Amino acid sequence: MIVLGIDPGTATTGYGVVTTDTTVAADTTVLGRFAKSGHAAPRLTECGVIRTSPRAPLHERLRDIHEGVSELIARHHPDALAVEDVFYARNVRTTLVLGHARGVILLAGATAGIAIHEYAPALIKKTIVGAGAATKDQVQFMVAKLLRLKHAPEPADAADGVACALTCIMAAAGPLARLRANAAAAMAVRP
Amino acid sequence: MIVLGIDPGTATTGYGVVTTDTTVAADTTVLGRFAKSGHAAPRLTECGVIRTSPRAPLHERLRDIHEGVSELIARHHPDALAVEDVFYARNVRTTLVLGHARGVILLAGATAGIAIHEYAPALIKKTIVGAGAATKDQVQFMVAKLLRLKHAPEPADAADGVACALTCIMAAAGPLARLRANAAAAMAVRP
Repeated sequence: MIVLGIDPGTATTGYGVVTTDTTVAADTTVLGRFAKSGHAAPRLTECGVIRTSPRAPLHERLRDIHEGVSELIARHHPDALAVEDVFYARNVRTTLVLGHARGVILLAGATAGIAIHEYAPALIKKTIVGAGAATKDQVQFMVAKLLRLKHAPEPADAADGVACALTCIMAAAGPLARLRANAAAAMAVRP
Repeated sequence: MIVLGIDPGTATTGYGVVTTDTTVAADTTVLGRFAKSGHAAPRLTECGVIRTSPRAPLHERLRDIHEGVSELIARHHPDALAVEDVFYARNVRTTLVLGHARGVILLAGATAGIAIHEYAPALIKKTIVGAGAATKDQVQFMVAKLLRLKHAPEPADAADGVACALTCIMAAAGPLARLRANAAAAMAVRP
């Protein structure tokens, strides 16, 4: 299963491609326990950001975001597109403009005919860290642990895209596997 | 000059295609005076609405809106796309979802490489009726007068799309021509 996770933004859209195999890895690490529940440990295939020029008019920035996401779909052939829900900014204008960016991202998935999942920020935090009010640092730390990376993906927007993809994969693995993976990873990170 | 005007909405997106010729019509009607200022009276080529299913998920509705607008651009080859600004609904969720629809509409114009203009609802009312606080009925009445139609375009969302296209054409004609056309049409509609 290949999931393209997206953290939408007009200036910077973060993305991460996360893959799991259906084969069960004979693995004794903490994430091996997640694998033993019937799902191979997920791995990071690619992550990064789509940046748009702050001086370009909105419609050009939307075109760049749409092209960037469409190109990622064409290159990775994901089974699903996981898109983070828009944070309701206090400034209505900001929320509105973010809606424009989300619109062209969802369109890229709809045109490609792949499954589309949307996750609220609190659900992503709850799935990755185990608490809906987790900090950005905690999410990045757990993303690195769950994908067995030395460091969290950078920049932070890319890590948010990866977290969204990981949420989709862990949600697909079912609640029990998710709890096991979280508990195992959480135990491993204690000093 | 051909302008495609759009009134964005997730359920119903209204549109209107309005055309002006560069030739000056030898015309003695009130709109002929607009023509004499160097611009032929605008005429309505087509109007209507793009409807989406309320039961379909958001990404499918966005795909339908994008396809509908792209098809209109391919068929009419407009010189400009005129899109009404989103009304800031009290409900932030509504504003956000409208942003999604606007995003895919602006994208259709950007992909086609045509000029894109955005007009606030108050500016459209001011241009068409002469007052930013004009009612919907007044706008529809003036749209019918300016385009020499027997009735206002229906449904109301289509008339809003037409008003947006007409605003773009009257804005392009310059402030003096706009004032003249408004004054002439306003005098003609007095009982």
